[in-house]
Amino acid sequence: MKPDHGSDTGGSAARFGQGAWIDLSTAINRRPWPLGDLPPQVWRALPTAAARDRLIATAAAWFGCPAAQVLPVAGASAAIRMIPRLLPTGRAAVIAPSHDDHAASLGAAGWQVSQFARPEAMEGADLAVVVNPNNPDGREWPPEVLARLARRVGHLVVDESFADVRPDLSLAPALPPNVLVLRSFSPFWGLAGLRLGFVLARPDLLGRLSDAAGPWAVNGPALHVGAQAMADRAWADATVLYHAEAALRLDRLAIRAGWRPAGGTHLFRLYDTGDAAAAQERLARAHVWTRRFSFSRTWLRMGIPGGHEEWDRLTDALRKI
Amino acid sequence: MKPDHGSDTGGSAARFGQGAWIDLSTAINRRPWPLGDLPPQVWRALPTAAARDRLIATAAAWFGCPAAQVLPVAGASAAIRMIPRLLPTGRAAVIAPSHDDHAASLGAAGWQVSQFARPEAMEGADLAVVVNPNNPDGREWPPEVLARLARRVGHLVVDESFADVRPDLSLAPALPPNVLVLRSFSPFWGLAGLRLGFVLARPDLLGRLSDAAGPWAVNGPALHVGAQAMADRAWADATVLYHAEAALRLDRLAIRAGWRPAGGTHLFRLYDTGDAAAAQERLARAHVWTRRFSFSRTWLRMGIPGGHEEWDRLTDALRKI
Repeated sequence: MKPDHGSDTGGSAARFGQGAWIDLSTAINRRPWPLGDLPPQVWRALPTAAARDRLIATAAAWFGCPAAQVLPVAGASAAIRMIPRLLPTGRAAVIAPSHDDHAASLGAAGWQVSQFARPEAMEGADLAVVVNPNNPDGREWPPEVLARLARRVGHLVVDESFADVRPDLSLAPALPPNVLVLRSFSPFWGLAGLRLGFVLARPDLLGRLSDAAGPWAVNGPALHVGAQAMADRAWADATVLYHAEAALRLDRLAIRAGWRPAGGTHLFRLYDTGDAAAAQERLARAHVWTRRFSFSRTWLRMGIPGGHEEWDRLTDALRKI
Repeated sequence: MKPDHGSDTGGSAARFGQGAWIDLSTAINRRPWPLGDLPPQVWRALPTAAARDRLIATAAAWFGCPAAQVLPVAGASAAIRMIPRLLPTGRAAVIAPSHDDHAASLGAAGWQVSQFARPEAMEGADLAVVVNPNNPDGREWPPEVLARLARRVGHLVVDESFADVRPDLSLAPALPPNVLVLRSFSPFWGLAGLRLGFVLARPDLLGRLSDAAGPWAVNGPALHVGAQAMADRAWADATVLYHAEAALRLDRLAIRAGWRPAGGTHLFRLYDTGDAAAAQERLARAHVWTRRFSFSRTWLRMGIPGGHEEWDRLTDALRKI
């Protein structure tokens, strides 16, 4: 079972033509943290314990949790694959609709997977998986609701891939003992090629994940860039502000095009378009790629444009709908 | 159980002083493939299928096997961790002495691990693991010996991390159906920070590994740099030649210091020093870091120096022994 992650515009380019595509099919920030030259050792040497410790300390400060609860991994998607193979299989409860990678990975690892619309309905599961804020509809649950759920399941995985713009929702600052929080570097810092993410959990759980991932799970450039980027609070503040304004601006354009806002976060927006296939195709003709979902005929998800030229092209394209 | 991989000179620097260390404790080429600037998309976008396909095609040509038998992974060490968790556990036979990561990873995954000095003694095992050429002693087995072993075990893993300088030893061009070959990008191309390696196997085995690794197991820079570097045959030819000459030169220096060559490959040399702890410490005082082994009091392994300045410092340091 191969989940559709959007992105990878190879297919759309084949159908609608090569050229300068604006890929809004992912929720990856199109104004990435500005990368400078990397020291040669980052490429040449095996990733060092010192570089890993620096990243962990910086990430822990960003997440608001102790460094001992932070494990860097090769992207949140690596953790989504590892965790179902690490815990003894049983009944898994997964929030839906949501990022379909969780259910797919659990199923492949031998779990009996059921989907639920609300966390409250998941009580009694051996493993519960919630995405907070949720992708693609942006539903959110207060930490205390999820802490209560944690007390009533075997383990709870909270995928906080989009929580960098909503730290108030995070379970990181008060992590229950049976919770694993997933964080992703790609959406907020915009450097998805690096493959960097984190699992936040109590040290005993983290130790087992770390053994399975091995000593060099994260590449040297990712350790270096991650530590620099996550310490850059001025950039982070400006990024939060840009996306907050941009999300409102995108909603206004969508409403003018006759669509209805259906949720999202400041890193992506979800619209009820009436006919998602037709809407996606019209934008694709203007070389703007967006995201549809197997479970909805009307929903279209869009990332946030990165600059003036992208806004202009998108505004034009939406006028023609 | 945390294997000692050498490298990570943090500890030795703390003991013998900061400064310009020459790290010969790994077998990573100190004249790495010359990296240029990377296109911004390599960092920004999720690794694309097209970039992955390009790397696979280039790697298949280098290994001499069909592209359908090549899976890029985040370093050979990632594969060493995944494979024991993928196959049903049982009795594993591992070559010894060798790279201790194999036995450690099998043990952690629940295998009953026995060590053997010769592949012929491994017949009947559910899983056999051979390193060819072997690390650290450079023992080598002709492909037909390992193909015969493959017919008499459940699965055979052949770690060919050092076979880029010995393609004649590789099982890749005629892969038996139950064999998994591991290849590492770091030693030959000298870019260990990238975390790039390969599993070569029949498509059914590869598919299961690929599902466990996920769609973005290898980062964007590694896909891009790997495809460029592995296509650069002029660089590869010069690198093979340099290391062949350098290995002989290092042996001569070692013999003059009173050591006895005990094997190795052209990417690293092994010496019987009489007293490995004393020899390592003397070189460390000159800020040259080398590799000892828990299973030998006399063996010292050394990588190949990278240039004139390194040869001069090493020659000086060895004179004082």
